[in-house]
Amino acid sequence: MKFGGTSVADLNKIKNVALRVKREADSGHQVVAVVSAMSGTTDRLINYCIEISPLFDMREYDVVLATGEQVTAGLLSMALLAFGLNARSWQGWQLPIKTDAAHSKARIDTIDCGPLIKYLCDGGIAVVAGFQGISPNARITTLGRGGSDTSAVALAAALRADRCDIYTDVDGIYTTDPRIVPQARKLEKISYEEMLEFASMGARVLQTRSVELAMNNHVRLRVLSSFQDLPGTLVLHEDEIMEAQKVSGIAYSRDDAKITLLRVPDRPGVAAAIFGSLSDQNVNVDMIVQNVSSDGTTTDITFTIGKADLTRARDSLKRARPLIGYSEIFEDANVAKISVVGVGMRSHPGVANTMFRTLADKAINIQVISTSEIKVSVLISAEYTELAVRALHTAYELDTSDGALPAGTLP
Amino acid sequence: MKFGGTSVADLNKIKNVALRVKREADSGHQVVAVVSAMSGTTDRLINYCIEISPLFDMREYDVVLATGEQVTAGLLSMALLAFGLNARSWQGWQLPIKTDAAHSKARIDTIDCGPLIKYLCDGGIAVVAGFQGISPNARITTLGRGGSDTSAVALAAALRADRCDIYTDVDGIYTTDPRIVPQARKLEKISYEEMLEFASMGARVLQTRSVELAMNNHVRLRVLSSFQDLPGTLVLHEDEIMEAQKVSGIAYSRDDAKITLLRVPDRPGVAAAIFGSLSDQNVNVDMIVQNVSSDGTTTDITFTIGKADLTRARDSLKRARPLIGYSEIFEDANVAKISVVGVGMRSHPGVANTMFRTLADKAINIQVISTSEIKVSVLISAEYTELAVRALHTAYELDTSDGALPAGTLP
Repeated sequence: MKFGGTSVADLNKIKNVALRVKREADSGHQVVAVVSAMSGTTDRLINYCIEISPLFDMREYDVVLATGEQVTAGLLSMALLAFGLNARSWQGWQLPIKTDAAHSKARIDTIDCGPLIKYLCDGGIAVVAGFQGISPNARITTLGRGGSDTSAVALAAALRADRCDIYTDVDGIYTTDPRIVPQARKLEKISYEEMLEFASMGARVLQTRSVELAMNNHVRLRVLSSFQDLPGTLVLHEDEIMEAQKVSGIAYSRDDAKITLLRVPDRPGVAAAIFGSLSDQNVNVDMIVQNVSSDGTTTDITFTIGKADLTRARDSLKRARPLIGYSEIFEDANVAKISVVGVGMRSHPGVANTMFRTLADKAINIQVISTSEIKVSVLISAEYTELAVRALHTAYELDTSDGALPAGTLP
Repeated sequence: MKFGGTSVADLNKIKNVALRVKREADSGHQVVAVVSAMSGTTDRLINYCIEISPLFDMREYDVVLATGEQVTAGLLSMALLAFGLNARSWQGWQLPIKTDAAHSKARIDTIDCGPLIKYLCDGGIAVVAGFQGISPNARITTLGRGGSDTSAVALAAALRADRCDIYTDVDGIYTTDPRIVPQARKLEKISYEEMLEFASMGARVLQTRSVELAMNNHVRLRVLSSFQDLPGTLVLHEDEIMEAQKVSGIAYSRDDAKITLLRVPDRPGVAAAIFGSLSDQNVNVDMIVQNVSSDGTTTDITFTIGKADLTRARDSLKRARPLIGYSEIFEDANVAKISVVGVGMRSHPGVANTMFRTLADKAINIQVISTSEIKVSVLISAEYTELAVRALHTAYELDTSDGALPAGTLP
């Protein structure tokens, strides 16, 4: 059972989570609860780091950030103990959850489940601080934003758990964000592949890597509400879903920033110089577009990165300028990525065209296009986000017929 | 260099601390900085615990509380790294600082300084999270309120440091609290023994155990301001102080609560039953008074404990009632302990009498009296605290002649 930040936002919510855990334990299950930081905590801690030094050290950033989950793990264990249950907390370094040394974006290598399994077999309820681990040289690491999902799935895989239930502030996966489109529908089932596109596009329900990990380890995922008793959405292999929709949903993200390098010499090795320098700084690049410019000897390169990496990316590119040889660098953090996702796309042509036509009808300019087998994404100006999502949701016939608000959603 | 909560209260103060550490490092010293939680943090975390469960589990309490110092350690390391210095943080479990398993009040057993010494010799500045350690079964422990002082002194002893500088929000040890008596004088030197009485009486500058530890390990202590460049107060062995004052200062504490057990059977083993049950709960008892009641077969016993332990102590005594056999239990958290402290008392009679006469002149009722070689303490109603401290400060001729405010003190 994994509980996200809004599920443990305050002390009453933590007590509620304890009740949910107790209910599962009472019904005979062995339970490991994985917890996030209380909502707001991680942002507060990140702001501390930025105020101390805009180019903060990532090892110490991890030291600071890991405390958020530690607090929740302690408090939830306390609440379970107060119910008379046998419970205790484990920090990442305690279990240990061994990761690589990529601070702030570490990947889990191995989890030593021996002590945990013994504790569960002795009737204990284990509470594990999500989002964190320990590096090969015994420093605290964190797994990146939303990393508690990955902690939960990795633990479920290592323990060969029957289920990995992700409790969150929504009651399942919707065709799009119900805050933008009140007619959004809850999906009963979704494939890992679609979920991956949703998560990476900012559907904000599950961290991308957690879904990959679940897919690769056959972990049965369930996304459900912490606050209501509703069935939620199952995340499964594609072949377990009978009738694939052409388009399952519309995702959007405002977490990206766009960087354009003007008049980059058009010669082999230039792309490697650009993206190598970013990769050295652990900056993930998403969409990449390269245009040949009129003179034929230089080219313009545009790409998107996470907004949080913007300072780091800019500094890295400025340092690498002699090597790359661009004339100017532009950045734009005021962009949104809109994606249409569906495994049915593979067998249904024309999906991309419907998207472009719909956006053109609303006079929304497309800055960058990127496609995959089951997804078409475009970058647009951020101010058009809601308009684009609503228009596309209707264009792909995803609106509920009755227009009723989904449960748990405020209009 | 140890920095308390007010010295690292916000991000600018942490940057200032980094400057102070840099200055020491620049002048050729090898530096270990020990940090407390940012002021307010520990109280916030304690309140979380109390809200989750008034009788919270101490092991999980330690998990929650230890995060405060971890955050500061990470942030200070970041600030030092931003200056281009070589620095890193160590948590209690990382060093490790090995303690016993008395959660929330653990005692340090050993500190493995090997990696730390190597790091210092390689030119690094070590930042250690104070207040915490790791128990024999690898759980996080904390050392009790003000435990960062103990962390600092224990590290200084283990490293055979030349000095242990305790940076705080006062610029030294005063004859009493300058907030109550503006005429209080700063002491240039004070003996460990007097400091012990001051600290345990709530002078709030140094944790008692840290002074004991310094005394036993010959650690040269200096108490000085984080915010001003002033010499501070040296804490030394008594024989290093030439002219001992009859009375060095007046201390007070409002952290105590009084418990009275009425009509306890007057037979051997009863005191053991009472204080054994409290000791089992890790409740420290301070003053104890026993009166024989009129019937000769029962007695009333009054004692004081820390206010924070009141619920725990009450529950423990109620459970032990069949064993102890008292008729009624009274508690009073509205008390203050006032102490007159001075190594000169040993050779000067009449110190206690001056105290009783001064309080009587102000019509202040004395509830409990307790004395040691260098201290006389009385328990009075909390509302008389300031009146009593001021009157005693004058009676023992401790007021400065010019009445000037000490530096760094708000009137």
